[in-house]
Amino acid sequence: MSNKKPIRLGMVGGGNDAFIGAVHRIAARIDGEFQLVAGALSSTPEKAMASGAALGLDPARTYEDFKTMAAAEAGREDGIEAVAIVTPNHMHYPVAREFLKHGIHVICDKPLTSTLEDAKTLVKVVESSDGLFILTHNYTGYPMIRQAREMVANGDLGDIRVVQAEYPQDWLTEPEDNKQAEWRTDPARSGAGGSVGDIGTHAFNLLSFVTGLQTEALAADLQSFVPGRALDDNAHVMLRFAGGARGMLWCSQVAPGNENGLRLRVYGAKGGIEWDQEEPNKLWFTPFGEHKRLITRGGNGAGEAANRVTRTPGGHPEGYLEGFANIYAEAALAIRAKQTNTPLPPEVVFPTVQDGLTGMLFIQACVNSSNENAAWVSL
Amino acid sequence: MSNKKPIRLGMVGGGNDAFIGAVHRIAARIDGEFQLVAGALSSTPEKAMASGAALGLDPARTYEDFKTMAAAEAGREDGIEAVAIVTPNHMHYPVAREFLKHGIHVICDKPLTSTLEDAKTLVKVVESSDGLFILTHNYTGYPMIRQAREMVANGDLGDIRVVQAEYPQDWLTEPEDNKQAEWRTDPARSGAGGSVGDIGTHAFNLLSFVTGLQTEALAADLQSFVPGRALDDNAHVMLRFAGGARGMLWCSQVAPGNENGLRLRVYGAKGGIEWDQEEPNKLWFTPFGEHKRLITRGGNGAGEAANRVTRTPGGHPEGYLEGFANIYAEAALAIRAKQTNTPLPPEVVFPTVQDGLTGMLFIQACVNSSNENAAWVSL
Amino acid sequence: MSNKKPIRLGMVGGGNDAFIGAVHRIAARIDGEFQLVAGALSSTPEKAMASGAALGLDPARTYEDFKTMAAAEAGREDGIEAVAIVTPNHMHYPVAREFLKHGIHVICDKPLTSTLEDAKTLVKVVESSDGLFILTHNYTGYPMIRQAREMVANGDLGDIRVVQAEYPQDWLTEPEDNKQAEWRTDPARSGAGGSVGDIGTHAFNLLSFVTGLQTEALAADLQSFVPGRALDDNAHVMLRFAGGARGMLWCSQVAPGNENGLRLRVYGAKGGIEWDQEEPNKLWFTPFGEHKRLITRGGNGAGEAANRVTRTPGGHPEGYLEGFANIYAEAALAIRAKQTNTPLPPEVVFPTVQDGLTGMLFIQACVNSSNENAAWVSL
Amino acid sequence: MSNKKPIRLGMVGGGNDAFIGAVHRIAARIDGEFQLVAGALSSTPEKAMASGAALGLDPARTYEDFKTMAAAEAGREDGIEAVAIVTPNHMHYPVAREFLKHGIHVICDKPLTSTLEDAKTLVKVVESSDGLFILTHNYTGYPMIRQAREMVANGDLGDIRVVQAEYPQDWLTEPEDNKQAEWRTDPARSGAGGSVGDIGTHAFNLLSFVTGLQTEALAADLQSFVPGRALDDNAHVMLRFAGGARGMLWCSQVAPGNENGLRLRVYGAKGGIEWDQEEPNKLWFTPFGEHKRLITRGGNGAGEAANRVTRTPGGHPEGYLEGFANIYAEAALAIRAKQTNTPLPPEVVFPTVQDGLTGMLFIQACVNSSNENAAWVSL
Repeated sequence: MSNKKPIRLGMVGGGNDAFIGAVHRIAARIDGEFQLVAGALSSTPEKAMASGAALGLDPARTYEDFKTMAAAEAGREDGIEAVAIVTPNHMHYPVAREFLKHGIHVICDKPLTSTLEDAKTLVKVVESSDGLFILTHNYTGYPMIRQAREMVANGDLGDIRVVQAEYPQDWLTEPEDNKQAEWRTDPARSGAGGSVGDIGTHAFNLLSFVTGLQTEALAADLQSFVPGRALDDNAHVMLRFAGGARGMLWCSQVAPGNENGLRLRVYGAKGGIEWDQEEPNKLWFTPFGEHKRLITRGGNGAGEAANRVTRTPGGHPEGYLEGFANIYAEAALAIRAKQTNTPLPPEVVFPTVQDGLTGMLFIQACVNSSNENAAWVSL
Repeated sequence: MSNKKPIRLGMVGGGNDAFIGAVHRIAARIDGEFQLVAGALSSTPEKAMASGAALGLDPARTYEDFKTMAAAEAGREDGIEAVAIVTPNHMHYPVAREFLKHGIHVICDKPLTSTLEDAKTLVKVVESSDGLFILTHNYTGYPMIRQAREMVANGDLGDIRVVQAEYPQDWLTEPEDNKQAEWRTDPARSGAGGSVGDIGTHAFNLLSFVTGLQTEALAADLQSFVPGRALDDNAHVMLRFAGGARGMLWCSQVAPGNENGLRLRVYGAKGGIEWDQEEPNKLWFTPFGEHKRLITRGGNGAGEAANRVTRTPGGHPEGYLEGFANIYAEAALAIRAKQTNTPLPPEVVFPTVQDGLTGMLFIQACVNSSNENAAWVSL
Repeated sequence: MSNKKPIRLGMVGGGNDAFIGAVHRIAARIDGEFQLVAGALSSTPEKAMASGAALGLDPARTYEDFKTMAAAEAGREDGIEAVAIVTPNHMHYPVAREFLKHGIHVICDKPLTSTLEDAKTLVKVVESSDGLFILTHNYTGYPMIRQAREMVANGDLGDIRVVQAEYPQDWLTEPEDNKQAEWRTDPARSGAGGSVGDIGTHAFNLLSFVTGLQTEALAADLQSFVPGRALDDNAHVMLRFAGGARGMLWCSQVAPGNENGLRLRVYGAKGGIEWDQEEPNKLWFTPFGEHKRLITRGGNGAGEAANRVTRTPGGHPEGYLEGFANIYAEAALAIRAKQTNTPLPPEVVFPTVQDGLTGMLFIQACVNSSNENAAWVSL
Repeated sequence: MSNKKPIRLGMVGGGNDAFIGAVHRIAARIDGEFQLVAGALSSTPEKAMASGAALGLDPARTYEDFKTMAAAEAGREDGIEAVAIVTPNHMHYPVAREFLKHGIHVICDKPLTSTLEDAKTLVKVVESSDGLFILTHNYTGYPMIRQAREMVANGDLGDIRVVQAEYPQDWLTEPEDNKQAEWRTDPARSGAGGSVGDIGTHAFNLLSFVTGLQTEALAADLQSFVPGRALDDNAHVMLRFAGGARGMLWCSQVAPGNENGLRLRVYGAKGGIEWDQEEPNKLWFTPFGEHKRLITRGGNGAGEAANRVTRTPGGHPEGYLEGFANIYAEAALAIRAKQTNTPLPPEVVFPTVQDGLTGMLFIQACVNSSNENAAWVSL
C-alpha cells in the first residue's frame, strides 16, 4: 500500500447475485489501491439501482445504463479513473469502447468479446485511446505461475517440448438452472464458444503466459453432451507451437468431481513443472535426472517474479482472490505510471487486449476446426 | 458488503516491516467493512510517523504513542470505532486497556497478553467496558473449521475420544536473526511461552473451538533446542478433557520442512475428521465403516456454518487472508449489533477475551508442567 | 493358494539384466500357483545358459533357443504347462506360435507383436490351438481398476461421456544409453510405434477395459523429440467412441518428473472416477452433486470385483507386482479350468489375444493418422 | 534370486483364516528364497490338518502340534532349516524355544512375547542356540525407511532433535467381533499392551531403527475407549532420548478414517524427513532453508541402502508385501551366511531378539507409566 490515494473505480455489471462482480470488488479492495465510487451494475435499471444501494454507492453515481455513466463520470472532476467491466461477454466490447472513448482505463473480464470482429475492432479502439486495457485472465496473477514463467524464461526447463493444459469443471453436468449458467450457454451473449470460451481461454492464456510459446495451429473436437445445449461443454484440442513444441488442452464443464481444475504441465529438454490451480501455492519442478522439488509460494525456492506478488509467508496460503488481486495491483501500477507519465517497470505484467484477441482467435479456431472434423486450423 | 458505512478503524503497532500488521489491514479491508483512519504504528515515534505516511493516513491522525491516540480519537466526532492491536505481546494489555477505557472496541492479536496476571485483569477491564474485545485466533475463521465445529456439534462424530493437534514450523531452526523472531524469543516481550505462546495457543484454541471440549489437565515437555534461546522452541503436550477424551498437542518452530503446519484431527465413536491449514479448503470426514469423504469449501457437503463465511465457489481456493478476514467480518457484525443495540445472531462467533484467558492458562500450565518434569497440571 | 501342484512354467527371454523378466518371475511366484522349471532366457546362447544357472534352473532344461525348448518340453512327461514370453516385441509372435503349436499355454508381454500382420496371424494361431493366450496388460490386474470397471458396468457413472487417459514417463528424455531403451527405440524390434507401442497401448487397453467402450476412430499427433530417434517418444491422441463418448490419450517418455504416470479419468452423466497408477490403492469417485469419496483397496467401499483380487487389508498397500500377479492368478485359474475342462467363472478376466490385436490396431492407427497430419483413422 | 536351493521353511500358526500367516507365506515366496514344506498351522488339530492340506503341504509334514513338528523336522535329513512363528503373542516364546533348541532358525512375528519375563528368557535362549532369530518388524524392510536411516546416519539431518511417530488405525472402533480382534484384546494371549503392543511397538521399533536413538524414558497415557475392553486401544506417549532429543508417539485402534497410518517424522538441526506407510514409495526430505524434495523408491535421489532392497523401478509402486519380503530376504542372507560360516555384510540388517526385548520394555514402560498417572519411566 502506498501513500497515494486509491484510484477511483467504476463498475459495469456485477449486480446483486453476480459471482464475478463480487470477486472484482474484493480484488480491487485487497491492496487498498482502488475505491469503488460509481456503477451501472445491471442492465435492468431497478436492479442496477438496488445493487448500487446495497454496495453503499452514492445514488448520484449509481447509473441505470453504462452510456450515461461513461458520459457523467467523464464530466466530473472526481470522475472515475478506471472501470471494471463484468457483464456477459457480448457487452464487453460496447461498454469498453464507451469508456475508452473518454480515456477511462478499462479492466475487463474475459473472454475479450463475444465475436472475433468485436475483438479486432476493440484492439483498434484501445490503440487509439488514452485509456489502458487490462484483461482479467486472473490465473496469471498467481505467484507460482509467475514463478513458472520466470523459470521457463530462465531456461530451467530447456527447450520446451510438451505442454499439457486442462481445465475441467462439473457444474454444467446437468441442464443449466441458474443465472451463471444461463448466459454462458447462450451463443448470443457468450459467443461462438461454450466451455472453450468460458474456461478454455483461461487455460490457453495460461499456457501462453507461462511458456511464451506461440500457437501456430490447432485441431479441436468440441462436444455438447447435455441434450439441448447450444454450445460446447467439453473440448479436446491438440496444439502445435512455433519451434516444434506440441500440446494438448482439455476443457470441460461436464466432468463430475472437478470443481475448478485448471492445471498446467510443461516439459522441456532439461526439466518439467506442474501446477494445479486448486493448490496454487505449490509448484513442482523436476530437473531431469534429479528428484522432484516442491517450490512453495513465499517459501524457499521462490524467486523474484513470484515474491513481488506475494503477500503472506510460506504456509499461509493465498488463494483465488489474491491471485485476482494481483491483476488489479498490476493494473494500479500501470494506471499510475500512465498518469505520471513514467515508464512501467518490465516486471509489471498483465493480460492485454492483444492477449484477448489471441484468446478470441483461439475460440474461433476451435470452433472452425471442430466444424471441419478437427482439421488443423491456423491461429 | 452492506450499504452501511465502513467502521472507522485505528491500529496500534504494525509499522512498516511488521508481518501481522499488514495481514490485519488486508483482513479488515477485504469485505469493505472497515476503513483504517488512524494509527500509532510503532513504538519508535519516527517510524510511527513514516509508517502512517506510507499507509496514506492523515498526518493529524498518525500518532507517536497509543495513549495520545486513544485520547485524541475518543475526542473526535469522527474518531475511530475500533482499534486493531498488533504489537508484541507485552503491549496487548496496556494498549487494550487504554482504548477500552474510552469504549473503543478492540481487535487484538494473540496471545492475549504476556502474563497471566495481565490476562486476568484484562478480562475484568473488558467486562466493565462498553467496548467489545475480539481476539484474532484467525484460524477459527476458516470455513472448513466452522464446518468441522458444526459437525462435532451435530454429533456426526459421536462422542469425541481422541484429539490430535499439531503446529510445526521451521523458521526458528537456527538462531534468530530477524525482527519477527527477536521479540518472540524474548520473555520480557513474549511472555513465559515461546512456541507454546506463539503457535501452541493457536492449536489449543482451534481444538477447543472445534470440539467444544474443556481441558482439565495437561502434561507438557518443553524444550529449547537452539543454544542460547530463552524460551521453548518445541513442546510436547498430553491433554485430558472433561468427559474422558484425551489429546496430544505438538508445536515446534524447529521442524525443518514445515512452513505453517497447523493440523487438527478429531476422532469420535462414530467418525473422524482431519484438517490441514496449508490446504484449508478441504475437510476429510470418515463415518466409521464407510469410505472417506472430502468435503470442500464451497462445494457439495459444506453446511450452513461454512457457507456463511465463504466468498468464492468450490475450487476457487480461499486462503489465510480470507480466514483472517472472517474474524474481522464477525467483528463488524458484533460491533454493528452493539452500536444498534440489536442481538447478535448465534451463528456469529469469534474468539473472546475469555478464550484469550484460557490460552494464557494453557501457556502457564505448559510452563509449570514442564518445570515439574511434565507433571499433570490443571488448567 | 490351493492344494493343487504349481503349474510348470517356462520362460523365453528375461535373462540376467532384463527388467520385465524378473517382474514376471515374481508375479508368477507370489501366489505359489506357478513354478519356473525351464527357460530359453536369452537369444545369446551363453547368456541363456548363465541366466538359467543364476535362476537355479536344471541345466537340462535351460535351452539355448526357444524352438529346441518348445520341442523338448512338449516331449517331457513333466514338461512345462505354460510359457512366459518376455522378449522384445518382434519375437513375441514366432515364440508364441512355436509353443501354441505344442498346446502349451502362453503368457505374453505386450504389445502383442511388432507388426499388425503378425498380430492378425497370431489371432488365428491361438484360435486353432489348444493353448490359452494371456497378454500381460498388467495394469488391468489392479484391484481398484477392477473396482472402476465394476462401477462403470453397474451404471454408477451413468452414460460415459469423457475419457482422459495419460501415461507420461521421463526415462527417454535424453538419447538412450541402456539396453531397456535400445530395443524400444528400434523399429525392427519394437514395431511401428515407440511410446504409443510401449506405453500408449497400456493406456488404451486400460481405458477400454474399464469403460467397455469401443473406439471408432482416432486422430494422433506423434513426435520424436530426441534428435536421431526413429520412433515417437510423445503422442497426442483424440478418440471417438461408439455411442458418442470422446477421449484424449497422452503418452510420453520425455516428460521430466514423471516416473510411470499412468492415469485414467472417466466421466459420465452421473459421476466421475479418477485413478493414478502410482497410488494404485486409491480410487476417487464423485457422484455428481455430492462430495468426493475415496474408495480404498481392501477398505470400505471396495466391491466384489476388487476384493477377489485383493491380498492385504486396507492401508497395507499393494503395488505393481501384486497387480501383475493378479494376471498370473487369473491365468492359473484359466489354465486349470482348461485342464479340468470346467467352465471359467465370468469374474475371471484377463487380456486376450483379441485385446492384443486391438492394441496393434491402435498403434497402427496412431502411426497412420500422424502420417496423414492427424486425420481421423478408423480402428 | 540366486542359484542356491530355496531354504526349507516351516510355519507354526497361520491357519486358514489368519491374516498374518498368509502375509508371511507370500513374503517368503516373493524372492524364491524359501519353500514352505512343513507346518503346525493351528492349535486346533483338525484345523491344522485342513490348513496344511489347503496349502498343499505333505500330510506327513503337517503336524497337529508344534512340539511334534520340531522334533520330527529336526530328525529329518530334509527337515526345515527355518520356522516362521505366526501365532498369537503368548505362544511366540514356547514355540521359538522349541525350535531354537534344535538349532532351527526362527522368523517370528512381533511383539516378541506376551510377557517381559518370557522376552528376557528368550534372549538367553537365542544367545545359547545355533539358531538365528529374526523378528518381523516388517516396516523396517521398506526401501524408503532404509533410505531414511541412511540419511540420518550420514548426518543429512544434523543432530536429531524431534521425533514424531504415530500409528492410527480404526478397526477396533467398535467392540470386536472377529478372530483378529479377539486375541489382540485378550491380555492372556496378547500381553499387557493392547494397541501399544500390537502397533505401538511397530512405531517404536521404526523410530529407533531410523534414528538410532536410544530411548531413556517415557511418559504414557493409555486409554481403553471401547466399553469392556481389557487393554488399551489408544496411547499417548512422550519420549526422551539419550543425547537430548525428544519425541511423541501416538498409536490408536479407534481413530475412524485411519486404515494403517504408520507415519514417522524426524527433525534435526540441519533438516527433516517425513514418511507415511500408506505411501511407502515416497520420502520427503527438506534441508533447512531449501525447498522440499521428494525422494522416490527406485528413483533419483535414492541411495545404496534403499536400492539394495528395491525390486522395481521408480513409479512401479512396491507395497507392504515387498517390504515384508525384504525382512525374509535379509533372513535368507543371514541364514545362508550362518550355514556357510561366512561373515554377514554390514548392510544386511533385520530386527533381532534384542530389538524384540526393547519392544517389550517399551510396552511394559507404557503400561507402568500409565498406571502411575503418566509418570516418567526408564526403559
